[in-house]
Amino acid sequence: VTSELSIPVHAEAHEPDLGRPIRAIIYGVGSMGKVMTRMMLDKGVDVVGAVARTHNVGRDLGLVAGMGRQLDVRITDDAQKLLSDRRPDIAVVAVGSYLEAMAPHFRLCLDHGVNVITLEEEAFHPWRRASELARELDALARSRGATLVASGIQDPFWTSAVSTLMACAHRITRVHGRSTYDANEYGPEVTEYLHLGVDVDVAAVRIEGAYARGEDNVAVQTSLEALAALVGLTPTEHESSGVPLVAHDDIHVPALDRIVPKGSTIGVSDRMVLHTHEGIDLEFELQGYAFGPHDCEVNEWRVEGEPNLSMRNDQFPVRLATATTTVNRLPDVIAAPPGLLTVELLPPLRYRHGHFRHPGRTR
Amino acid sequence: VTSELSIPVHAEAHEPDLGRPIRAIIYGVGSMGKVMTRMMLDKGVDVVGAVARTHNVGRDLGLVAGMGRQLDVRITDDAQKLLSDRRPDIAVVAVGSYLEAMAPHFRLCLDHGVNVITLEEEAFHPWRRASELARELDALARSRGATLVASGIQDPFWTSAVSTLMACAHRITRVHGRSTYDANEYGPEVTEYLHLGVDVDVAAVRIEGAYARGEDNVAVQTSLEALAALVGLTPTEHESSGVPLVAHDDIHVPALDRIVPKGSTIGVSDRMVLHTHEGIDLEFELQGYAFGPHDCEVNEWRVEGEPNLSMRNDQFPVRLATATTTVNRLPDVIAAPPGLLTVELLPPLRYRHGHFRHPGRTR
Repeated sequence: VTSELSIPVHAEAHEPDLGRPIRAIIYGVGSMGKVMTRMMLDKGVDVVGAVARTHNVGRDLGLVAGMGRQLDVRITDDAQKLLSDRRPDIAVVAVGSYLEAMAPHFRLCLDHGVNVITLEEEAFHPWRRASELARELDALARSRGATLVASGIQDPFWTSAVSTLMACAHRITRVHGRSTYDANEYGPEVTEYLHLGVDVDVAAVRIEGAYARGEDNVAVQTSLEALAALVGLTPTEHESSGVPLVAHDDIHVPALDRIVPKGSTIGVSDRMVLHTHEGIDLEFELQGYAFGPHDCEVNEWRVEGEPNLSMRNDQFPVRLATATTTVNRLPDVIAAPPGLLTVELLPPLRYRHGHFRHPGRTR
Repeated sequence: VTSELSIPVHAEAHEPDLGRPIRAIIYGVGSMGKVMTRMMLDKGVDVVGAVARTHNVGRDLGLVAGMGRQLDVRITDDAQKLLSDRRPDIAVVAVGSYLEAMAPHFRLCLDHGVNVITLEEEAFHPWRRASELARELDALARSRGATLVASGIQDPFWTSAVSTLMACAHRITRVHGRSTYDANEYGPEVTEYLHLGVDVDVAAVRIEGAYARGEDNVAVQTSLEALAALVGLTPTEHESSGVPLVAHDDIHVPALDRIVPKGSTIGVSDRMVLHTHEGIDLEFELQGYAFGPHDCEVNEWRVEGEPNLSMRNDQFPVRLATATTTVNRLPDVIAAPPGLLTVELLPPLRYRHGHFRHPGRTR
């Protein structure tokens, strides 16, 4: 059957398209930066530079990113010179998890009028957690006509998809999410954060101490803040806590290269409840632990109300999806108005087949 | 912990709000119309009229809708007079499943400059399936400054949520969805459509005959068309087929008030593959059958590509969500520009807490 195309002009969802490739630099060539380099090249992005520290400086990005070929892009540690010389449309910044550590890099890009997309977790919704710094970056971005956005799995899986599920409800009293990730997929910073192999009582005291110092889980907090903003709910108070997860058996943990004995800490469950003025509680538990052979990533959300609703993603590819979502946001960031923008102000993330083109600015 | 609110003005997602209630009429007081009446009243909608045929005419909407109280809204069969006298903002039209049967009702509303939201399945994306009629309604709506939109579960569950899942992929080759519904929740029209209790060979011939006459499943086709439009894919050809589902045991079917014996038809699986110019196949199977005690509604989608992705909704409240989604679309329809609009042109459906207010027109 051949279908006849018969769509009136106003019913086509055209994107503005300047018809030229997006010029990007990759800012941070760690494991995520390498994956994103390959994905951007697949999508026709013109990767015109790369910034790294330490041992990769001077090497070719193509070889460092495991492309098996030279890209004629020499990795530099002089971001300022690169930004001035190459004038990219956007910088893909992947050098850390906290806004304070990332801010100097964001400032440098924005100051050159270069848009930023990042997978930095705090920038995903920093207004409450890091409000002063967020306001400063927002003002800088607007003064330079540039846009700063953070994406990552929280964008589709912990925000948009949850909002869509909520959209099927007449009334909601509570939303509950749980998501898991495998400690073995991350480096020593994460195994330490998760207290892998530590005595459970010791871990519990340490986690409690961290929460008492205000060290909430950044991804949990900013995801719930973004969800509230997207759905138009007004947060009032929040409660956060973390507990150690206990190994039920002796388990070999590749990340530590040793056995964690039964009864020791195998990970951490970070939990937050965000209360809202509307009386709806938004709750999210993020559980990082060393997976055994039968564990897999799960992302599951439940809406309590009329009606009850649920969704579940199994074998949820946390790491790879962090890269795909960040790369898929590129055209949205370039098309967006200037400022530090959070996802409730952007169109929903969507799949784009084939090559990205520069979308122009809608500003 | 009390959070400090510190969001810059441009980061708040304000909706325009004229500060007055939405004035609506309910057009069709069947089972869905009754549920939607109650939901609209809960949401502060001013229900200023109701249209029905036959035995409910002259009765009070509140009593007919099972509210247990009078609403001082007398059900009428004179839609023309009601539209002229009450000048509602929107008509919630729930009187059938096919565009041709619904078109006279849509025309009447649009002709009076009254917006329409409907759960009619063909209008969800009629451009290919009923293109002439769709163009005519679109032109009429635009000439009268009114908007016609169809919503229903296909809006969030078979379109937005699937697009969000696809948004996490770098490359996609195939998307596959499967959704089930219980024949017992519907009337005799559906039990007949599903060939409940009929000999399997007879049912197979009848279903094949229907498909040969071009009687594809309307919900399956229009959902895939909407998904393609939302993701920006260009359909080329499609293949449709239906097969009977076979009872594995003797099963009591409340909808028939009898036992369907093992080996007979217990329902139908309607399937469509929409091929696209981009080489991505979109496939959807909608399985309606008489549930046994261990069956429940399932909505599950799989994306094949890099990476593979999946989502699943269990105990998916098909009927109630048809009503909630249609009601939750009210403010979007009033705010939208005139014309027959399909969901890729609207903001994503979202939950709205508390009372709706008239949002004004963005036109």
